[in-house]
Amino acid sequence: MEDIRIAVIGHGFMGHEHETMLSQMEGIRLIGFSDRDPKQLDDVKEGLKRYESNEALLADPEVDVVLIAANNNQHHDLVIQAARAGKDIICEKPAAMSLEELDDMVRVTNECGVKFTVHHQRRLDQDFRIMKEIFDQKALGDVYMMKNSLYGFNGNMHDWHVYISEGGGMLYDWGVHLIDQILFMMPEAKITSIYADVRNVINFEVDDYFKILLRFDNQVMAEVELGTYLLADKPQDKWFERHWIMGGNKGTAYVDGFEPEGRIVRTTELLTNVSGSRTMTAAGPTRSFGPPAPGKIVTEDVPKVNTCHRDYFENYKKAYYGEEDFLVKIPETRRVLTVMDAVRESAKTGKSVDFE
Amino acid sequence: MEDIRIAVIGHGFMGHEHETMLSQMEGIRLIGFSDRDPKQLDDVKEGLKRYESNEALLADPEVDVVLIAANNNQHHDLVIQAARAGKDIICEKPAAMSLEELDDMVRVTNECGVKFTVHHQRRLDQDFRIMKEIFDQKALGDVYMMKNSLYGFNGNMHDWHVYISEGGGMLYDWGVHLIDQILFMMPEAKITSIYADVRNVINFEVDDYFKILLRFDNQVMAEVELGTYLLADKPQDKWFERHWIMGGNKGTAYVDGFEPEGRIVRTTELLTNVSGSRTMTAAGPTRSFGPPAPGKIVTEDVPKVNTCHRDYFENYKKAYYGEEDFLVKIPETRRVLTVMDAVRESAKTGKSVDFE
Repeated sequence: MEDIRIAVIGHGFMGHEHETMLSQMEGIRLIGFSDRDPKQLDDVKEGLKRYESNEALLADPEVDVVLIAANNNQHHDLVIQAARAGKDIICEKPAAMSLEELDDMVRVTNECGVKFTVHHQRRLDQDFRIMKEIFDQKALGDVYMMKNSLYGFNGNMHDWHVYISEGGGMLYDWGVHLIDQILFMMPEAKITSIYADVRNVINFEVDDYFKILLRFDNQVMAEVELGTYLLADKPQDKWFERHWIMGGNKGTAYVDGFEPEGRIVRTTELLTNVSGSRTMTAAGPTRSFGPPAPGKIVTEDVPKVNTCHRDYFENYKKAYYGEEDFLVKIPETRRVLTVMDAVRESAKTGKSVDFE
Repeated sequence: MEDIRIAVIGHGFMGHEHETMLSQMEGIRLIGFSDRDPKQLDDVKEGLKRYESNEALLADPEVDVVLIAANNNQHHDLVIQAARAGKDIICEKPAAMSLEELDDMVRVTNECGVKFTVHHQRRLDQDFRIMKEIFDQKALGDVYMMKNSLYGFNGNMHDWHVYISEGGGMLYDWGVHLIDQILFMMPEAKITSIYADVRNVINFEVDDYFKILLRFDNQVMAEVELGTYLLADKPQDKWFERHWIMGGNKGTAYVDGFEPEGRIVRTTELLTNVSGSRTMTAAGPTRSFGPPAPGKIVTEDVPKVNTCHRDYFENYKKAYYGEEDFLVKIPETRRVLTVMDAVRESAKTGKSVDFE
């Protein structure tokens, strides 16, 4: 099969990431970059084109696929332009600022007959895939809760992410990933209600803290929490990184960190203090809590997973030639945006939002 | 002042706790115990009365105050009986199984002109008082979130707490404390909505997991979470004990454990990576998260507090003679029960419940 020839709009953080990734991949040929700020192109690698405008990139017949890595507020217009130019499209997340934008983009890409997918590469994160494997294996029995969280230490956001007009804020940046992971883990489960808190704790314009509860009809209550300024000196837990915990009626699993470390945890003693007679046998500060005696808690390795962000483009190549489905389907992306709308509504009204 | 003469109904776990506490206190004279199961009286200390029935205890003119430490489902009837017998009353928490019960108890105790309060001794827990002190001092600036949680390792509950008919379950046992602590920390703040999940994870009859979100009009979102079977092998955090975390715009504080250890955590670098220009300077797996460089996180001791459960009865003695207010006022107890009703309603309907 011929190489897929990709050009990228936007040579910011993600543009650089794509440059590194795509210039090494077999089956893909990276053609070049455009950026509305020409200075951003100064460090484009030798041998790649530096387009003088997005329009020039879109007009290049050598380009099959446009990867849109511009600021969030530009996604809509650029997708429309790329579709009208007959290019297939990969758009960075969030695909759009709103459902209305996305629906418009889908309409035009369909009309133009171009392929359209979204770069949700964090479906391939190791921490997420470990938890998904545990869930899929039913290693914890019936899961009742899971929490997907991330904490940072100085409230910072980068570049345009501090501007509301550019589509900034942590809900658009990381929220979309954390929500997408939960939905991708349980694609069949319907959300019945959403309750959320979204704050600007120390940033002026944009959200930098959120807690989101998603109640599913498969009996799972999933929580997403992110703070750029929720602090702890707990290095052993890699506090300022990622955390997952999942609880079921056969055990609990956790993983911490971007290079995840975790355990499946079970107990050797179950309900043993519950006596049919109503006598008092135990004592201590409380009868149901406190450290277990040695040997009462046993752990297992979490599953090994073989996953990396490169797999996104390995899938893209096959899907491009019809050998498999795209990893990220537009209705899934649309569902994430509807959740985000409900999150904002709940945060604004202070009430839960019925869903699906 | 004369000693306050107290007799206790119920010689189970809490009855034994009261026996130890009250038999050592100046200004209080412990008279004796009754229990519907006479075997429970076998180990009552020498010198204390062992009443042959609750009625015999209530008829004893030597008794000023009855402390009711019977199963939760007996509180209502026993309070009514004690009031009609002209005794002042301390009732174990939860004061009642329902608002209707409590209102009936209040009506009768008022008619009979007896003193009535509730034993919410966990208002005097060290972990709670540390966090309350941090909150009251505004040491974290504007607080936006707090979480009050407790995890256990084998799903166990004790004695009658496994029976729904006796008022069992963790919501009645510990939920009432954890909610009461939050309300007592912020007595002026109104709750605007409640969203909750309550489960029987491994117990047949009664709840053994709950997550409760309380949204307050002072901008705090407070969470209460308890699991008797939410497992981790994280001894450094005293996982199977108590946890508090509180986040504000000037820092974060946490304490872990029944003998609490915690820190106030701040950062030396605030929003420094947010640049007005839109250039890309940072790199790494993510730009906003990951371990801070050495020196970027600084910690402070949490405040020292001088508190213990005995203080409940020190207050009781003074309040009994009108020198100060009772630590636990009935309208506060009633508010906790209305929250519990809303928690159950939210867990049942899957929606948030508007409040206050």
